[in-house]
Amino acid sequence: MCSVISRVKPVQRALALGLRLRTNTDGWSCAAANRRSFCPGLNTDFEPIQVASRRYCSSTVLTKGLFFRQLFELESSTYTYLLADTETKEAVIIDPVLETIDRDLKLIHELGLNLKVAVNTHCHADHITSTGLMKKRLVGLKSAISKFSGASADIQLSEGDKIKFGKQYLTVRETPGHTDGCVTLVLADQSMAFTGDALLIRGCGRTDFQQGCAEKLYQSIHEKIFTLPDMCLIYPAHDYLGRTASTVGEERKFNPRLTKNLEEFVNIMNNLNLPKPKKIDISVPANLVCGVYEV
Amino acid sequence: MCSVISRVKPVQRALALGLRLRTNTDGWSCAAANRRSFCPGLNTDFEPIQVASRRYCSSTVLTKGLFFRQLFELESSTYTYLLADTETKEAVIIDPVLETIDRDLKLIHELGLNLKVAVNTHCHADHITSTGLMKKRLVGLKSAISKFSGASADIQLSEGDKIKFGKQYLTVRETPGHTDGCVTLVLADQSMAFTGDALLIRGCGRTDFQQGCAEKLYQSIHEKIFTLPDMCLIYPAHDYLGRTASTVGEERKFNPRLTKNLEEFVNIMNNLNLPKPKKIDISVPANLVCGVYEV
Repeated sequence: MCSVISRVKPVQRALALGLRLRTNTDGWSCAAANRRSFCPGLNTDFEPIQVASRRYCSSTVLTKGLFFRQLFELESSTYTYLLADTETKEAVIIDPVLETIDRDLKLIHELGLNLKVAVNTHCHADHITSTGLMKKRLVGLKSAISKFSGASADIQLSEGDKIKFGKQYLTVRETPGHTDGCVTLVLADQSMAFTGDALLIRGCGRTDFQQGCAEKLYQSIHEKIFTLPDMCLIYPAHDYLGRTASTVGEERKFNPRLTKNLEEFVNIMNNLNLPKPKKIDISVPANLVCGVYEV
Repeated sequence: MCSVISRVKPVQRALALGLRLRTNTDGWSCAAANRRSFCPGLNTDFEPIQVASRRYCSSTVLTKGLFFRQLFELESSTYTYLLADTETKEAVIIDPVLETIDRDLKLIHELGLNLKVAVNTHCHADHITSTGLMKKRLVGLKSAISKFSGASADIQLSEGDKIKFGKQYLTVRETPGHTDGCVTLVLADQSMAFTGDALLIRGCGRTDFQQGCAEKLYQSIHEKIFTLPDMCLIYPAHDYLGRTASTVGEERKFNPRLTKNLEEFVNIMNNLNLPKPKKIDISVPANLVCGVYEV
């Protein structure tokens, strides 16, 4: 196992599984958040969130010692995220895109970061990942993707795994439905969630190819994302309308698809009639091998 | 005078003017930031920053009670910013674009915000502002722009003015050079600066039209933006490479133009040979009248 990944222990996994069917349908007020002593989800093996000292009412949240930067690739409207521990300089990049590798590596170099892991939230169909090429340029960098993605990578991610960078870490929540290998990555203090193509801003990933399943996606979002605190910031893999972020609370309240019941949701998803992604035939084979397939 | 704007008093303005020529050229370490008791710049008439309780080492900073959202308009690559007081719901929007007015108003409506001021950082040449149309749709909304912009607006902004929304406010710093009427808006705690087209990420606004003056821009950035704390987040009006934010520290260190001396900077700016902005002939006349000119 890679040193930057820690697995949950069996007893914790059992606890986690016990929580899988728990759907938090209560609205969370800021006051409620400050009183709350139990945090829903799978983070059972570390300190409870310091709710007393945190201010959930703010949408610009503070995580001590965290560097965070959102980056955008204009052709595929993909968001890449760079996170680092400001003390140790260890860093993680989420969903890097081949076309913007030079921009991303330049920033990493300028900031003196030590990129430990390049993780894909799933096997993308609309762009080619830069993970493989990045590994060739940065010594020691590990690639990571869900074990259910079917893609090769140094680290095969499972539910509850932690991707560590310095004192910070991201916890893996499996959120299948768009593809079987979709994961949501949640910052340790649950102030940020990187939802890939599972939950988008006022939308969600399509479910009509790559093992897509509307029922599974609905369950994933309700059980693994909507159980996070309302003020948890949602950072998706894409937005096509220039929106950069949302929150769990906003999506629970305003997402036009996820506010429907399961039957209505499935009906919506089965009738989107979207065109086939332009790059799917070259992106998926390439992304199955970290983006370094000869295309 | 509009109730949401407060002017600096004469004695404070004199102090501010006295500080105008002060250029902070020292590097700021996180440790230094924590010890620092004097904050450079023009905010001399309110409490000093609570450096002891703030954590400048984090790039995701916390401002108690602040809602913040960055939005992007894809055609002109313009960033719009929505800020609100989470308690009172009073809000300010910076540089809203005509094409995305429906998206922005929908978000404001969903969040139940009371938009008090729509402010433009300058008279844009590359897109038409939605300020005027927004005023027609939202009762009580005031438009604001620099008094040196030549544009009409409900509020003519001057150096040191405060744009208030609930308990939050933005302070106006005049940063001419790209145009005569460019301002940078600084959040009260100096954790964020909205630099318009004065300072861009690893770049700056062009100086070859609309009263552009490279010498003036160099002075503005060094005296009014680079004197902010290193960890102050820079949110520009545009980025063309998918970058969403920077910091004062990064730009002081890595901006390829602003790290040069004045002579070199002027030489760079005078030899950019950029094409005329496509929309300048319709944007500027429209923006001089809040974007509601018949075009």
